[in-house]
Amino acid sequence: MLIVKKFGGSSVADAERVRHVAGLIAEDVDKGNQVVVVLSAQGKTTDQLIAKAKELNQNPSKRELDMLITTGEQQSVALMALALQEMGYKAVSLNAFQIAMNTTRVYGNARLKNINTERLKMELEHGNVVIVTGFQGVNRYEDYTTLGRGGSDTTAVALAATLHADRCQIYTDVEGIYTADPRIVKNARKLKEISYDEMLELASMGAKVLHNRSVEMAKRYNVVLEVLSSMTKAEGTLVKEETKVERLLITGIAVDKNIARVSVIGFDDVPGKAFRLFDLLSRNNINVDIILQSIGREGSKDISFTISRDDLEDTRRILEENKEMLGAKDIKYSDQFAKISIVGAGMISNPGVASRMFEALYNAGVNIHMISTSEIKISVLIAERNVALAMEAIHDRFNMASHL
Amino acid sequence: MLIVKKFGGSSVADAERVRHVAGLIAEDVDKGNQVVVVLSAQGKTTDQLIAKAKELNQNPSKRELDMLITTGEQQSVALMALALQEMGYKAVSLNAFQIAMNTTRVYGNARLKNINTERLKMELEHGNVVIVTGFQGVNRYEDYTTLGRGGSDTTAVALAATLHADRCQIYTDVEGIYTADPRIVKNARKLKEISYDEMLELASMGAKVLHNRSVEMAKRYNVVLEVLSSMTKAEGTLVKEETKVERLLITGIAVDKNIARVSVIGFDDVPGKAFRLFDLLSRNNINVDIILQSIGREGSKDISFTISRDDLEDTRRILEENKEMLGAKDIKYSDQFAKISIVGAGMISNPGVASRMFEALYNAGVNIHMISTSEIKISVLIAERNVALAMEAIHDRFNMASHL
Repeated sequence: MLIVKKFGGSSVADAERVRHVAGLIAEDVDKGNQVVVVLSAQGKTTDQLIAKAKELNQNPSKRELDMLITTGEQQSVALMALALQEMGYKAVSLNAFQIAMNTTRVYGNARLKNINTERLKMELEHGNVVIVTGFQGVNRYEDYTTLGRGGSDTTAVALAATLHADRCQIYTDVEGIYTADPRIVKNARKLKEISYDEMLELASMGAKVLHNRSVEMAKRYNVVLEVLSSMTKAEGTLVKEETKVERLLITGIAVDKNIARVSVIGFDDVPGKAFRLFDLLSRNNINVDIILQSIGREGSKDISFTISRDDLEDTRRILEENKEMLGAKDIKYSDQFAKISIVGAGMISNPGVASRMFEALYNAGVNIHMISTSEIKISVLIAERNVALAMEAIHDRFNMASHL
Repeated sequence: MLIVKKFGGSSVADAERVRHVAGLIAEDVDKGNQVVVVLSAQGKTTDQLIAKAKELNQNPSKRELDMLITTGEQQSVALMALALQEMGYKAVSLNAFQIAMNTTRVYGNARLKNINTERLKMELEHGNVVIVTGFQGVNRYEDYTTLGRGGSDTTAVALAATLHADRCQIYTDVEGIYTADPRIVKNARKLKEISYDEMLELASMGAKVLHNRSVEMAKRYNVVLEVLSSMTKAEGTLVKEETKVERLLITGIAVDKNIARVSVIGFDDVPGKAFRLFDLLSRNNINVDIILQSIGREGSKDISFTISRDDLEDTRRILEENKEMLGAKDIKYSDQFAKISIVGAGMISNPGVASRMFEALYNAGVNIHMISTSEIKISVLIAERNVALAMEAIHDRFNMASHL
């Protein structure tokens, strides 16, 4: 079996952890598997390097920043190779140049294009554990690039896809994917498996275990992902093509607290006004999530929408500058909300799911401020202070603690 | 003018030093020069990385060690580029992959073969200061290699040769090449210039400012070197093709304390015995420097020779194991000696130089234990405790404190 295993920075933070991970890799080798390992930079290395850069340049160019921080992963992979060799295993480390990990041009947030597998396959054939730098690539100018958030996960999935690996294991600090965040909902249950689409909805809705880009890529190339912990021997969660037999009504609940609500009140019901508003935001790279339009008094309109809290200050500045052009009477801003979403492939054929969710929230005394739905997801905006209450209520209402 | 400037690890140890060096580079750019910069890893970075490797593997493979420590130079060059950009200069950092810095295969001690200048020239044409990782290369397997001791100097000279630079400036912690070590001889004088051959003899004889490999390469490609300090504005020393006009009788005195003497006493005067001895040492990679053979009592021979102190333990073990085969009565070992050498292109045509040196030492009461000469160099072995005394005496005898 060919296995790709990815470990994040905290899993390789110091010599002791590196040895521990080397032990996990060795177990797979002992079972006769070929193993490709993808690593992030050790612990806080990347942050430390960025701090060094900022000591010299308040606004460092992304090209040089990538040149600087890619050294972090290169150190990790060399150290892991040394740890495995000390244990008597054949191992070789490779960076983005050595495997021609080609990306788009953009520094700091590049996308993978293709990988030359010749060197990888040769090293595997020679009986080596191959340890590859995550998060980094090389663009057409032969410069280092980095892949942005969740980059090492993406590297692992891309390698698994290109090498037709049997499994891609993503090691994290949790034991798998849960029906809800176990720190909030005490009955939260670990899932044996989840479909790509459900995982994508959960990830978009705030579940932070896997990054969307890696799940999208896994879905496109049908790579079976396994999310598991590097600290326990517990079985993880498989992320794979949906298997009807196990289709759950609700797979999981996600919460996203990085939400702000903006309400543009009382602007003229003239065609094109709403377009102007959202065009303005889009041109300033501000993503709008849920939109609610309602008829106000005297034929005027109110429009409410949610954005990321990170964009709240920018949004406020832009809208205040353009208040007249928009013809709005008043604009209100709030960061006291959170979004709770339930996700499940089973809800396509179960029209009653939404009303059961709303009923659960009503019984718990939680007000719903906005609603948004897709085929396999229902999201509601509630007051942030009600998050735990709401999640417990929904988790109980759908009996999520027990297997179907 | 195209200038290559090389700075060692202590010159770029922290943000303050990096900014200082960026200032030196900027001065050259302001004068309208094109500048290529070669950097070592910051301060103790390389040692720290080796220590991290040894935490995981007592006997780390050189391939992985090179993969690990080459990150040090990559960090330096990125940080320098950021410092220059902050000052408003165009700069780009490049590593060994990006300029195809091809080397021989051997990890840890590779030799440069060739450099692809396409990228370098393009970046210079775009008006960039080009900052290149010293000490590192890429071998035919597309693996990182390092160049061993003095590696960054070699990188700088190779770049200067390949780009036909007008000058190659090697910044050090001293202001140039002196007639003798200024810490030992208080009248030591800084040289305006020195020939490649004289520099090579001085470097081999223990002067540590430049490494032999870089001087050899500079000589082969006729690269004008300048040795100067990054901390003062003082003019440095030029290392270049000999100019007859300024030929000095004695250019400098060097001392090498890393010397041990071995005396093999009373072995049979039979053909092939001496050969056996030196063959044995050579097969064990032990370099012999000065050899003295003398006739002992009853037709037997004594042979004394010097080696590096680092090799003393190995030599002792090897000779004791083979004492019978060599047919030696006794073998003595001592690490109480030092070698003092005088170097000067002028001594070729001045047969009296040796006797003046011996006279100076005799007058100072310093015993000479062994002698070795080349066309432009005379070395003597003396007791280590007499080093300062001997150097002062020679320096005075040849009036080295004054020009010519």
